[in-house]
Amino acid sequence: MDDAILVLNAGSSSVKFALFGAGTLEPLCRGGIEGIGSRASFGGAKGPEAHLFDGVELPETSNHEAATRWLLDGIRRSDRLSLRAAGHRVVHGGPDFSAPVGIDDAVMAALDKLIPLAPAHQPHNLAAIRAVAKAWPGLPQVACFDTAFHRSMPRLAQIFAIPHELTDQGLVRYGFHGLSYQHVADVLPGIAGEAAMGRVIVCHLGHGASLCAMHEGRSIATTMGFTALDGLMMGMRCGAIDAGLVLHLIEQRGMAPAEVSEILNRRSGLLGVSGISNDARTLLASDEPRAREALDLFAYRVVREAGSLMAALGGLDALVFTAGIGERSAVIRSGICRGLAWAGVALDETRNAANETRISEDAARIPVYVVAADEERPIARAVLQQQKC
Amino acid sequence: MDDAILVLNAGSSSVKFALFGAGTLEPLCRGGIEGIGSRASFGGAKGPEAHLFDGVELPETSNHEAATRWLLDGIRRSDRLSLRAAGHRVVHGGPDFSAPVGIDDAVMAALDKLIPLAPAHQPHNLAAIRAVAKAWPGLPQVACFDTAFHRSMPRLAQIFAIPHELTDQGLVRYGFHGLSYQHVADVLPGIAGEAAMGRVIVCHLGHGASLCAMHEGRSIATTMGFTALDGLMMGMRCGAIDAGLVLHLIEQRGMAPAEVSEILNRRSGLLGVSGISNDARTLLASDEPRAREALDLFAYRVVREAGSLMAALGGLDALVFTAGIGERSAVIRSGICRGLAWAGVALDETRNAANETRISEDAARIPVYVVAADEERPIARAVLQQQKC
Repeated sequence: MDDAILVLNAGSSSVKFALFGAGTLEPLCRGGIEGIGSRASFGGAKGPEAHLFDGVELPETSNHEAATRWLLDGIRRSDRLSLRAAGHRVVHGGPDFSAPVGIDDAVMAALDKLIPLAPAHQPHNLAAIRAVAKAWPGLPQVACFDTAFHRSMPRLAQIFAIPHELTDQGLVRYGFHGLSYQHVADVLPGIAGEAAMGRVIVCHLGHGASLCAMHEGRSIATTMGFTALDGLMMGMRCGAIDAGLVLHLIEQRGMAPAEVSEILNRRSGLLGVSGISNDARTLLASDEPRAREALDLFAYRVVREAGSLMAALGGLDALVFTAGIGERSAVIRSGICRGLAWAGVALDETRNAANETRISEDAARIPVYVVAADEERPIARAVLQQQKC
Repeated sequence: MDDAILVLNAGSSSVKFALFGAGTLEPLCRGGIEGIGSRASFGGAKGPEAHLFDGVELPETSNHEAATRWLLDGIRRSDRLSLRAAGHRVVHGGPDFSAPVGIDDAVMAALDKLIPLAPAHQPHNLAAIRAVAKAWPGLPQVACFDTAFHRSMPRLAQIFAIPHELTDQGLVRYGFHGLSYQHVADVLPGIAGEAAMGRVIVCHLGHGASLCAMHEGRSIATTMGFTALDGLMMGMRCGAIDAGLVLHLIEQRGMAPAEVSEILNRRSGLLGVSGISNDARTLLASDEPRAREALDLFAYRVVREAGSLMAALGGLDALVFTAGIGERSAVIRSGICRGLAWAGVALDETRNAANETRISEDAARIPVYVVAADEERPIARAVLQQQKC
């Protein structure tokens, strides 16, 4: 029997999962369950062990607990794999969790207390942990946080200029996408060599989007804030916006706070500016001037925030793109890199169009890389390390 | 008789004024009235014509109208000066006023409509205009806007990533301190030569604080937003902050929007972080760790925003400090410039300590200047140009 590690990423209506071999973290299978809470369905799996889930129906009325049990039953069927531990993506680790942590009752109680910091996501992450504990009692579980990678940021990059009592209460810049940045930090030395330990800006550009400034592989600044609304413009989120405008909408226009939240979180960004779609691919294919404006604004905002992060780093040694748009949109990468030409960025457009790993010109001062996002592998790696402790 | 131009800057409880000769804009006198609305008092005047206001009591219960009448009576007493026109600082010109404008009934109606954009300031600016019209019927008056200088910004620097319908309603980045930036743009060619027409970042650091990126003497980006709350940390204002934190305070903590506004506008910034004072001089003199942290955060935020503006400009040719902190705090300038060393900024600390006009090292790639703020002179200049039209 080969030891395996299960990674779960549970959202409000979906569970993404991955299985890794516990030896060299070779991927065994990845897949997902969708429609949890309404009509759950298995979205399929890929990889050498995907057959474990063949031909077994997912109960139609499944919740997180039923979905997790179905998944674990599949793994139990294997006559080759022995499940050693499970790792979970947990969105919020608050001010205290700066690394992955083995789960026990005290940790669960602490994570429950963080729900108000991420009310839309944290409860689902915790439901998955509880479901595994129920379906497979005694299985070691590890929580890995989207915020933990940024706890290395200097204090000046973490605090807002608000009354210090509020800062002490945890109203600080947590930053997110930390598992994605951890993966880039893990693999970049093998791709970029020495530059990986230098001043690096990583652009995680997906439906959610943020930048991270890394030095020696650790976060020293990031664009998302107390919540995932801050920083870059995103598919539906406005990113950084004058707080005075938020208060104006409420105080002068009489909008309900929930309505303002809905506008800024779900009707802004690419969708709001274009009036067409939150999907960059749709906008790239459109002739509408507003589609173009939305994409131009997206690139402009990345360039501006990259400048701010260069100031935090004291310069730039490498630039990395990752996640959906970052990995697949040569046009958007090209627009961003043109805006950073002054800093020594220059793409080889042939390499860029081919989504190669290194897309900068050989002669360019700043190498530019594309790295495939993987939020599951750093979790599996963390589980393995916890097991060794 | 020599022609003179009166400049008025009316706040909620004060009126600052200045008289300039209409020929070469030589300053004739500057002064102020304080305590309007409660116990108004003349704060004194300086300059060759300051004697006009000697020995005449200001009515004790004065409002803007009485204060303005008293001021105009003083000018009428002169047997040497003939008042030709008055210019006013008006904080908000909205999306349409991109230059100074001669005042008539239609303009006043348009300016009244902008009150919701600056409810704390605009009404006082307009009250002063009406007071002059009543006390000196027929005197030409010109409105000069704090927002107008930034209307040259490209559209991508002006719009937020919100639904385009809201952008069309005027919810955009207006920017402020425009008269101060106009003055720097006016005088910089005489100080910095060719670099003044290049890529320049101006740091207006007073109780309110913002940065402006200028190219060819025109604003192409600025840190303040729809309101004067956005951007840099200030004496009492938080500057840029995650909108999600604003909504969290209201939705999760149950704070009233007015309370949140009070915290972010009047209890944050240097005051909130230090818990001691909103005055940089007090903090510089303090041994408290929080005083130091507030000052360090102030400089850090200037450095980060300067990086963002460098990205907007595509590099940097000159750096300028102006306004209270910018003109007088060598320590804070030094901290900011250390954070920009990577960009080629290097101060000559002897010149810096002496508040000289050029404070950079001779060998430094980026020249750094200190320019005395003057928001009245660009108004007088605009009045003169209007008179010539």
